[in-house]
Amino acid sequence: MESAVKLYRADLVTAKEPGRLDCLPGGYVAVGADGRVTGVYAKLPADLAALPVEDLGHRLLIPAFTDLHLHSSQLPTAGLGYDGSGAEWFTRYTRPVEERYADLAYADEINRELVKKLWENGSLHSVIMATTSAAATRNLLERLMKSGLCALAGKMNSDFGVYGDATEQTDVSCRETRELIDWARGRSDRVGYVLSPEYVPAATPELLRFLGECARQENLPVQSHMGEGENDTGVVRRRFPREQTYAAVLEEYGLFGRTPTVMAHCAATTETEFAAMARCHVTVAYCPHSSVEIPGKTFLSVRRCLEMGVPVGLGSDVGGGHTFSMLQNMVCAVQMSKALVHDKPLSCADAFYLATKGGGSFFGATGSFEPGYWFDALLLDDAELNRFLPYTLEERLQRVIYCGDSRNILRRWCRGEVLCCPDT
Amino acid sequence: MESAVKLYRADLVTAKEPGRLDCLPGGYVAVGADGRVTGVYAKLPADLAALPVEDLGHRLLIPAFTDLHLHSSQLPTAGLGYDGSGAEWFTRYTRPVEERYADLAYADEINRELVKKLWENGSLHSVIMATTSAAATRNLLERLMKSGLCALAGKMNSDFGVYGDATEQTDVSCRETRELIDWARGRSDRVGYVLSPEYVPAATPELLRFLGECARQENLPVQSHMGEGENDTGVVRRRFPREQTYAAVLEEYGLFGRTPTVMAHCAATTETEFAAMARCHVTVAYCPHSSVEIPGKTFLSVRRCLEMGVPVGLGSDVGGGHTFSMLQNMVCAVQMSKALVHDKPLSCADAFYLATKGGGSFFGATGSFEPGYWFDALLLDDAELNRFLPYTLEERLQRVIYCGDSRNILRRWCRGEVLCCPDT
Repeated sequence: MESAVKLYRADLVTAKEPGRLDCLPGGYVAVGADGRVTGVYAKLPADLAALPVEDLGHRLLIPAFTDLHLHSSQLPTAGLGYDGSGAEWFTRYTRPVEERYADLAYADEINRELVKKLWENGSLHSVIMATTSAAATRNLLERLMKSGLCALAGKMNSDFGVYGDATEQTDVSCRETRELIDWARGRSDRVGYVLSPEYVPAATPELLRFLGECARQENLPVQSHMGEGENDTGVVRRRFPREQTYAAVLEEYGLFGRTPTVMAHCAATTETEFAAMARCHVTVAYCPHSSVEIPGKTFLSVRRCLEMGVPVGLGSDVGGGHTFSMLQNMVCAVQMSKALVHDKPLSCADAFYLATKGGGSFFGATGSFEPGYWFDALLLDDAELNRFLPYTLEERLQRVIYCGDSRNILRRWCRGEVLCCPDT
Repeated sequence: MESAVKLYRADLVTAKEPGRLDCLPGGYVAVGADGRVTGVYAKLPADLAALPVEDLGHRLLIPAFTDLHLHSSQLPTAGLGYDGSGAEWFTRYTRPVEERYADLAYADEINRELVKKLWENGSLHSVIMATTSAAATRNLLERLMKSGLCALAGKMNSDFGVYGDATEQTDVSCRETRELIDWARGRSDRVGYVLSPEYVPAATPELLRFLGECARQENLPVQSHMGEGENDTGVVRRRFPREQTYAAVLEEYGLFGRTPTVMAHCAATTETEFAAMARCHVTVAYCPHSSVEIPGKTFLSVRRCLEMGVPVGLGSDVGGGHTFSMLQNMVCAVQMSKALVHDKPLSCADAFYLATKGGGSFFGATGSFEPGYWFDALLLDDAELNRFLPYTLEERLQRVIYCGDSRNILRRWCRGEVLCCPDT
């Protein structure tokens, strides 16, 4: 590890494990020249006394958020179509904007707004599913690279028409994916390509085999949807009679944890599959808002994932979920754990862990203030929320999560550097 | 009705009944000198052609919101204590701030902030439960009167120690209530006193009899809590063996619809009681966030209320609920109808009705653009949300509800007058 070159002083809150906050009022974070945390201190150690200290006052300094799942093309339809069925939502809103996103000028407008929204909400790491349009996906990668944000994005692969015509041809899907991988290789140390099969029911074995090969050869991460509903798990059984489940199909084709892998939703995922996820270290992207906005018949128990050792973080799932705000997604995660699931509910500290270190662990060392972790951080001004009682640090964090919004985020650091609003 | 003196032109949305939006792009609202709507027009009628028109452009003009239930003293604890049980929340957070609110200087700070929050969130009508402190309640009424908002507020009456010592003595409770009624009488045409027994389990028959007499003699409205949980309904049965239920006790003492009456929560309320509410025209203040943040074992079905003809609107229930935002309360109402209740879920248009005309009907003619209704309105700037698709007016409203916040509220009118931010 490099030695420290700078110190920040503030009221620190981080969650190294679910349900437990480490609170350090007036604590110090030491950061090395490489942008990584070298140490966290309640009192300034003698050997660091010569370093420059930036005193951030009585503001909260927390790890930045990770948004593990969202759809770039669906930014314009967030908030729409939740009154009807999932099928109506998809047909009326989602598919049309996905198609329109193939228009590069239009995609560029949306991608610019998307990058701003991620920045605004402190989601300095994200995993984004684009559409089947290679050009729009490349534009998204470019916009992300210019922003200074850390992100993974990929062209959606979808070559089997499970409920109608296929969205794309297998050979085109493979060729375009290969071209994007070639284009993105080595271009950025913050933004990378992620293999993005839409979901098992919409993929042919040929496509899955190709993507598995890419994962192995290029050491690329994987994102997909898994167990969104009972219908889909039925389709998997019919189409893949030998493997029977999402987990088994993806494992068969080398897309289940050989490289970093994240699966959105997992609402209809079985205990056996969760056990496979724990074993293969496959991350769940739990999307609380979309889980209730376009509800299925079954719901994910995050508590059960945590107990089984399945890695889990939060996804906004824009536009199946309506908001980029990880604060609102934390609140919803806690609420849904009370409303829908009969295990011990999630605490606010659990939700904070999910939004920081839980999701961040998919990327490696982000989402916590620990030596070796990137200094990816948010400075929160909670003075307005903080006037009426002698709140503890934990209570201040709760007040920001429940009563704050992006206006409370005063500054963002990504890998040790202050990140300005992209594209302004 | 007075004749029109002014016209506003904008994109109008109002909900005259649950589930149905009246959308009028570039429509006109005519307002009389008394601040009441005289007519709503798609095209300017010839006989009004000479009136001044204020063109508000392609912005949304909607009826202002009504927040049917909140606790002034709990503003500082919104967002806190939701991890534990309801009893812990009450003991650790609610009761201590209620006690501290008796300090008048402290109460004044909170009341000023409260009035600002109501204004900021467009809740131009509200029903507020203060604490047993008469001085703090009077201060709240004064702050409300200075603000230009319409509101009802009352000193909480709580003279029976259901789970411990009683909060106040019966004679003191009655005397102070009487003094506040005398003080408030005739002082404002926008702000009035509301009789506020905390809930039946915490009231003696003497207190209820006194409050019923006040309601009758002074024609004062009533607010209380009802059916928050199974424990409380059990207490009602034990303490009032003849009446057995909240509804029967309140009806017996003249506190159930003889004057405008609103009951918060009603989560453990029976069909028989709902039938009584429909018959007596007693309004339910449904508080979606607190229903899940401090959940009981049973949940209100708003759909069932609507079917039975029980008047119903939304309450933020700050601090049992975390947010003053009626937008977020609408979203939560829809989500909870999907998550918790097995009737037909609420639509976004249903929730909009609840937040406007549904709750507004408790006050009379507010919450809709109809002749004779007060011109209580919000101008919404949704340009930022509105850039990527040719949204319909209904879709624009949905986008504001789901993706907007108080920053989108550009201007507020109460009884025809523009309302500036209080106390700045």
